[in-house]
Amino acid sequence: MTTLGARMMEIDEGKVAIEAAIGSQVLQQHGAAHAGLAFSIGDSAAGYAALTVLPPDQEVVTAEIKVNFLAPARGDMLRATGHVIKPGRRLVIVTAEVHAIAGDQETLIALMQGTMVPVAP
Amino acid sequence: MTTLGARMMEIDEGKVAIEAAIGSQVLQQHGAAHAGLAFSIGDSAAGYAALTVLPPDQEVVTAEIKVNFLAPARGDMLRATGHVIKPGRRLVIVTAEVHAIAGDQETLIALMQGTMVPVAP
Amino acid sequence: MTTLGARMMEIDEGKVAIEAAIGSQVLQQHGAAHAGLAFSIGDSAAGYAALTVLPPDQEVVTAEIKVNFLAPARGDMLRATGHVIKPGRRLVIVTAEVHAIAGDQETLIALMQGTMVPVAP
Amino acid sequence: MTTLGARMMEIDEGKVAIEAAIGSQVLQQHGAAHAGLAFSIGDSAAGYAALTVLPPDQEVVTAEIKVNFLAPARGDMLRATGHVIKPGRRLVIVTAEVHAIAGDQETLIALMQGTMVPVAP
Repeated sequence: MTTLGARMMEIDEGKVAIEAAIGSQVLQQHGAAHAGLAFSIGDSAAGYAALTVLPPDQEVVTAEIKVNFLAPARGDMLRATGHVIKPGRRLVIVTAEVHAIAGDQETLIALMQGTMVPVAP
Repeated sequence: MTTLGARMMEIDEGKVAIEAAIGSQVLQQHGAAHAGLAFSIGDSAAGYAALTVLPPDQEVVTAEIKVNFLAPARGDMLRATGHVIKPGRRLVIVTAEVHAIAGDQETLIALMQGTMVPVAP
Repeated sequence: MTTLGARMMEIDEGKVAIEAAIGSQVLQQHGAAHAGLAFSIGDSAAGYAALTVLPPDQEVVTAEIKVNFLAPARGDMLRATGHVIKPGRRLVIVTAEVHAIAGDQETLIALMQGTMVPVAP
Repeated sequence: MTTLGARMMEIDEGKVAIEAAIGSQVLQQHGAAHAGLAFSIGDSAAGYAALTVLPPDQEVVTAEIKVNFLAPARGDMLRATGHVIKPGRRLVIVTAEVHAIAGDQETLIALMQGTMVPVAP
């Protein structure tokens, strides 16, 4: 989170939003942020969303996640919103959307769907 | 690539390997590298592998990719190997494996399967 | 569609719903419908949803799709609802939810996210 | 399996092959088999492969699976080969390839990657 310059913006039961600035160090040749930045904050938002539906002493690891990239990640920052679709003791099914924010314009750039596994700390 | 400290280690027709050190800035609470690092170099290796089967003036973007995480990313470095499964003018189907390397021990930590789309530069 | 006993229930711009009875021929040992039934009608609903945003002479093929199964497919019938997330000339990004319906109870049993490719007929 | 006309052709530790004829009831408008047939036998082959690495009294359910379709499913039959990539008590990571067989020609038509969950019978 620190390395990416990411900040948690919103925490609700089953929903977490994270933002990260699009700094020059994540830009690719095309002038858009590397797919890895969108993935990283989307995965983190989904993981933190899973934590909100688990007992306080649990942690989670990502078992698997799939991402469709919809548009180039251009703008000032990315905002990822993670959601719990189905909580569970063994598996927590999650989704995340990642938007690129340029001024007052928001563009959906990535859609993610995956599985978090609760683990003992 | 520079931000991640990643280096291209091998380029063949339809196959590219990339390595990145596991630096302290990518470590999580668990002492393993963040999922985003494995994703980023796996996605990059798969994308560069796709480039090897396209005309020299083409670029690629990741349309979608799915990753299963098999083990924690512990060790000195990660090595991602990307493969072209099916080349195509509109879609290039790719896979990637990511290994964590600790001394002379290699552990498969992530398996990826996705689609690259050729684009004009 | 005929083989599965599937019927189209709703067609809107970017949204299509399909239902199929859970007949004895698709039941597994567990007394739930085979994963292949949920996949098939979810994939079909997503594909028909993609058709609603394309010119009338186009067809689509599924390039890739991922499904998370959330609960056993028990009940009288399955209803799949496909949505277009992002239309496009080359790729149409879609999702689908599949519910099992038992009397007046609906359970979300599968969540799908994929890519349809428009093709000439 | 019976409904699809599928037969198990090969069972090894961590590897299972299944074949199904492409009958007229699974053909689509395009003259190729419906994506659901390839998915169903690929998913079954992957699930049976997972069973080979579990204690005899265990069963499995598919938690999630992703499929990339590489070519139309044309020919006499489909053969799916499922592989265990990583066994585990909680999760078994699997892949499957599906080939279409027309005479002595084999074409890779689908590639799958997923997660099976062992369950008590």
